[in-house]
Amino acid sequence: MKSSAIVQTGARKYEQQEFEVPEIGPEQGLLRIEQSGICGSDWSQYKQGFPFPVIPGHEPVGIIEQVGEIAAQRWGVGVGDRVAVETMLPCGFCRPCVRGKYNLCRASGSMIHAYGYRNVSETPTLWGGHSQFMYLDPHSLLHKVDPDLPSELAVMFNPLGAGVRWAQSLPGTGIGETVVVLGCGQRGLACVIAAREAGARVIVTGLGVDERKLELASTFGAERTVNVEKEDVVDVVREMTDGAMADVVVEVTSGATQPVIDAIELAAQGGRIVLAGMKYNKVDGFDANRVLMKEITIIGALAVDFPAYEAAIRIIESRKYPLELMHTHSISLSDADRAVRILGNEVEGEYGIHLSLVPDA
Amino acid sequence: MKSSAIVQTGARKYEQQEFEVPEIGPEQGLLRIEQSGICGSDWSQYKQGFPFPVIPGHEPVGIIEQVGEIAAQRWGVGVGDRVAVETMLPCGFCRPCVRGKYNLCRASGSMIHAYGYRNVSETPTLWGGHSQFMYLDPHSLLHKVDPDLPSELAVMFNPLGAGVRWAQSLPGTGIGETVVVLGCGQRGLACVIAAREAGARVIVTGLGVDERKLELASTFGAERTVNVEKEDVVDVVREMTDGAMADVVVEVTSGATQPVIDAIELAAQGGRIVLAGMKYNKVDGFDANRVLMKEITIIGALAVDFPAYEAAIRIIESRKYPLELMHTHSISLSDADRAVRILGNEVEGEYGIHLSLVPDA
Amino acid sequence: MKSSAIVQTGARKYEQQEFEVPEIGPEQGLLRIEQSGICGSDWSQYKQGFPFPVIPGHEPVGIIEQVGEIAAQRWGVGVGDRVAVETMLPCGFCRPCVRGKYNLCRASGSMIHAYGYRNVSETPTLWGGHSQFMYLDPHSLLHKVDPDLPSELAVMFNPLGAGVRWAQSLPGTGIGETVVVLGCGQRGLACVIAAREAGARVIVTGLGVDERKLELASTFGAERTVNVEKEDVVDVVREMTDGAMADVVVEVTSGATQPVIDAIELAAQGGRIVLAGMKYNKVDGFDANRVLMKEITIIGALAVDFPAYEAAIRIIESRKYPLELMHTHSISLSDADRAVRILGNEVEGEYGIHLSLVPDA
Amino acid sequence: MKSSAIVQTGARKYEQQEFEVPEIGPEQGLLRIEQSGICGSDWSQYKQGFPFPVIPGHEPVGIIEQVGEIAAQRWGVGVGDRVAVETMLPCGFCRPCVRGKYNLCRASGSMIHAYGYRNVSETPTLWGGHSQFMYLDPHSLLHKVDPDLPSELAVMFNPLGAGVRWAQSLPGTGIGETVVVLGCGQRGLACVIAAREAGARVIVTGLGVDERKLELASTFGAERTVNVEKEDVVDVVREMTDGAMADVVVEVTSGATQPVIDAIELAAQGGRIVLAGMKYNKVDGFDANRVLMKEITIIGALAVDFPAYEAAIRIIESRKYPLELMHTHSISLSDADRAVRILGNEVEGEYGIHLSLVPDA
Repeated sequence: MKSSAIVQTGARKYEQQEFEVPEIGPEQGLLRIEQSGICGSDWSQYKQGFPFPVIPGHEPVGIIEQVGEIAAQRWGVGVGDRVAVETMLPCGFCRPCVRGKYNLCRASGSMIHAYGYRNVSETPTLWGGHSQFMYLDPHSLLHKVDPDLPSELAVMFNPLGAGVRWAQSLPGTGIGETVVVLGCGQRGLACVIAAREAGARVIVTGLGVDERKLELASTFGAERTVNVEKEDVVDVVREMTDGAMADVVVEVTSGATQPVIDAIELAAQGGRIVLAGMKYNKVDGFDANRVLMKEITIIGALAVDFPAYEAAIRIIESRKYPLELMHTHSISLSDADRAVRILGNEVEGEYGIHLSLVPDA
Repeated sequence: MKSSAIVQTGARKYEQQEFEVPEIGPEQGLLRIEQSGICGSDWSQYKQGFPFPVIPGHEPVGIIEQVGEIAAQRWGVGVGDRVAVETMLPCGFCRPCVRGKYNLCRASGSMIHAYGYRNVSETPTLWGGHSQFMYLDPHSLLHKVDPDLPSELAVMFNPLGAGVRWAQSLPGTGIGETVVVLGCGQRGLACVIAAREAGARVIVTGLGVDERKLELASTFGAERTVNVEKEDVVDVVREMTDGAMADVVVEVTSGATQPVIDAIELAAQGGRIVLAGMKYNKVDGFDANRVLMKEITIIGALAVDFPAYEAAIRIIESRKYPLELMHTHSISLSDADRAVRILGNEVEGEYGIHLSLVPDA
Repeated sequence: MKSSAIVQTGARKYEQQEFEVPEIGPEQGLLRIEQSGICGSDWSQYKQGFPFPVIPGHEPVGIIEQVGEIAAQRWGVGVGDRVAVETMLPCGFCRPCVRGKYNLCRASGSMIHAYGYRNVSETPTLWGGHSQFMYLDPHSLLHKVDPDLPSELAVMFNPLGAGVRWAQSLPGTGIGETVVVLGCGQRGLACVIAAREAGARVIVTGLGVDERKLELASTFGAERTVNVEKEDVVDVVREMTDGAMADVVVEVTSGATQPVIDAIELAAQGGRIVLAGMKYNKVDGFDANRVLMKEITIIGALAVDFPAYEAAIRIIESRKYPLELMHTHSISLSDADRAVRILGNEVEGEYGIHLSLVPDA
Repeated sequence: MKSSAIVQTGARKYEQQEFEVPEIGPEQGLLRIEQSGICGSDWSQYKQGFPFPVIPGHEPVGIIEQVGEIAAQRWGVGVGDRVAVETMLPCGFCRPCVRGKYNLCRASGSMIHAYGYRNVSETPTLWGGHSQFMYLDPHSLLHKVDPDLPSELAVMFNPLGAGVRWAQSLPGTGIGETVVVLGCGQRGLACVIAAREAGARVIVTGLGVDERKLELASTFGAERTVNVEKEDVVDVVREMTDGAMADVVVEVTSGATQPVIDAIELAAQGGRIVLAGMKYNKVDGFDANRVLMKEITIIGALAVDFPAYEAAIRIIESRKYPLELMHTHSISLSDADRAVRILGNEVEGEYGIHLSLVPDA
């Protein structure tokens, strides 16, 4: 059996290739991809290239096509089950892993031990989700997903998982607390949903070009949206909270450093800030005295963990939020480069928030 | 100015008396009662009597009639504001108080330093909510409440505060977790609401006589109700969770000890149990080995704290849950004994869940 | 190469047998045992037998004799390094494992996936520490130990790890807090050391026959020892704390249920109780109301985790406590039955606290 | 009765004045000062002046001279008891206070509601520790101290309290963890002691002029001292931890911003940083990406809390550390300006670490 897959062979070079589907051992499995989510990092990597050829895609949802005996027991799945697969392939036994922080797994510190980032020359080759089939390594972490769910909803488990971890579990957001989400990309919107699901009051920021995303944030339950080109978010939050400011600030913008500075102003005395947006530069003007005087806690957040993925899938299955409005495109695997360029705002007339690739039947 | 008030002078003895309204100093205030919530403990105390005469009522909502200059600043309120008043009058400076556990305030260990439990002979007399006016001591903790809210909804801040603390903040309930609430009185129902508001999946138990309460639990979002006289809740939870059992168990039944035993079976490995239901007897057959083998954490919970009251008021103000279905009776202050007997199921043809007293205009 | 090993073939049946040392693959290793600690569970199992023949011993310290290339990298060890090996062989990928609670690993729920508990008929046979050589499975968790340390000190890493987790990390014991340790066996004494190392004040209980252990507790820094046959520990703690009672109570007695009852009386308002002692019977007379009124937290504790083992090894390496006084016997592997009977108090004239087996050179 | 006291009337202006000792009401008390600790902030304030005249001194130890009936019960003290008095006079009822974060008390946000910072024109005048007698307000927080302790040791409760909170309780430092303390002033040294008392391994930094303080750090148990003018602390920690870096970094330098940058490099994956040193400028070059990639938690720390003061007093009473080596000067109240200038390194031939003022007999 053959599997068609996208291989990134250089900067802005996606090639569709065919690979032999591997033999599956007792601790392994094979996933028939339904949808493979596209992440902002796919876009960065598309532009910049990667040190070696890889099959991208680290947010796959699919159907178990084959599964070894031991793997079936470990994962609690059988052939025909629908599953979401986590990005990471943790070693399971390093210092972070045995502490439950497998997102910091040393073995995968180099980002090699994750789906979408292994050399296609390394057997069994099918290490990425932008493919018809994906190999399931013994180190995979799987989550069963309701088979009745439309696959374009199921595939949002990854950004929603980030939302749960960054906007709820890491800062310990409680009912009735005020959460400010800085940024309204797919992960910002996921933070809005997660904070709402945890019973919080949500304020979210964006730029002028984000009008549609901010509207969506309102649809998902944000009480207030702020176009930071027109309004000062610090003023808005001060007024809305009678000066008490935000219990939780989640910083998920990418590139700009001003939101890190803003976060410190936005946080209440004793407030928590989650930093989850990668920056182009170091931050100048970081006010350590304010952090100290307000006894703020700042929490660095990288990726998602098992309980957050589980919670995310429960949210999707609940159908409580119109997630279909966030999923703007399901695009054929053969149009992968177009898909990633839509996410990167390079395709005129297209506006992408969450996109995924779908293998041809 | 005079205030009419209920005074409990003995077992099953409520007398309506008139008292002079006190002069208000700079750190004090006076509350014009809109509604005074009736608690299960009011019923117990009604039957058993109390060592000295008191004006009962420790769940009042009302309007600031007068407020001293320092008090106004401390509480952030002015004349005409609507507020909910916490039960406790903490000292603010004992060991539990300075640790933020003022519900364990030593000074009030004897239940004297709380509204509804001070001797009427102690000036300024108006120490209880079952009254037209209530004195606001400098040690009071106040929460502003939306003035547009019907007062019969506002008055539910106290049981809902318990729900928030017991079902969410103490056990750290997260999105998508499974919460089993044992008991469906007003506090059990409040736990259902709080767990739902925190994004959890909820299963709730009751007896045959609780049919209407269990229906209400479903209306509030419980996924499953269990009449423990007909079904084994442990079996139900095992099936619903594929054997994983509950992340959180909240025990809010009163009297019976079996639910404490059940809670240990119901909890998942690493699960948390909150004990909040007072028992008539000590518990026999407590399985310490299971607690150890499953690494369960058991958390004793007494009363409510400030953040939980705040969250509760935010839930009520959101109008997200049809709380009016839980509030079965607003009864005239002059019928206080009838009200408390309805809660105690002594009045034929009446079925009370949450009740409150309303002073005559 | 051959390895001599003890095989338990039935109740009170230890046989010394010889096995072929296995070939070591790239993810595996071979340990030359220096000392194999004897646990209270060895004694229980010796008396009661086990469903199938096993090489007991789950607290081994030894020297890396062989190690595969991948294993060397994963564990950070090379041939000749001294290591302590954890009891558990966690799967690394089940729900508890990915949360950092691998001591509750589902795969090892049956106690099969741990050293000392696998059938000798299962290759590669050398699954236990009471042996000359032990096989190191890919799922092993290893800790490097200072090679200059006497091996009879190094081998105490396991009970000390329990002390760290039970008396410090699980209850979050802070400097200056009062810790009551109920029980003074090797794990009780380890709790004394850990609590002292964390800066706490320690009170420890024992029976009349435990006189020597209680003296040792004093040597390790306990401020007060209580023979519960002569004194009421609740009275002692009340007096020593001016009525405030204990911040932390660690219950590590085995069999008796009264200490669980006592723990609730001993705990301060807001105190924490760790239950780590297995009982013969369920506990009658458990006072749930007191747990609630004092807002006590009860934490079930099973086994040890990675950070606690690390901390324990640091304590041993510091040579700060005269641990040699706790290690009463290093006994030849060929006398294994005598060793385990000393621990069980069946050998007249011998008094064992911590014992280990040493293979013949 | 009169009390002599130091009044700061302007920049570098200390005047010794006499005030009438106030009448003490039922909720108040009067403290006869034994020693009044001098803080780094005393030096800053001495140089810069203060908006109105104050009696400085917010770290007093003394003997209860008078105490009202209610105060005696609340504080658990009687005439003749020795007590340490906390700096803050919290309101007890604002949002931070009821959460146990009274160090962030709104009422004292302006630093007015603290000893040493109230206008002498405000009765009863004696609001500071640099005096013979200090008024004890009902809002005071008191800790009993062993009367047998030399008073120059007792007076170090304040910096040691900071050490406990910053180096142990806020970052949750556990046994065997590696703690790097950046800065070796009296608070840095206190952090060394607290981290050691919690069972941690400690590395501490200083400048060339801090030689004597770094030696003292070694005496208190630091494993390694680093003169940052000669060595790169990041290299030192990398080597000492085999690349794992520090579990906890406590930043207590004053003024310089580079230590904040260093702290991020020094922290391990998942490590915690406590920021407690006030800076002259904002921090440039803050690497948010590293905080995110390593999932570091940064905790702003202001002042001390009740449990930390208690722990500090237990450490002092234990006489385990030669604290007398840290207390360099007990100086007569009448020489207050000289004392504060020694702390500021303005008095040639004198080298101050911890200093206190002593009223003339």
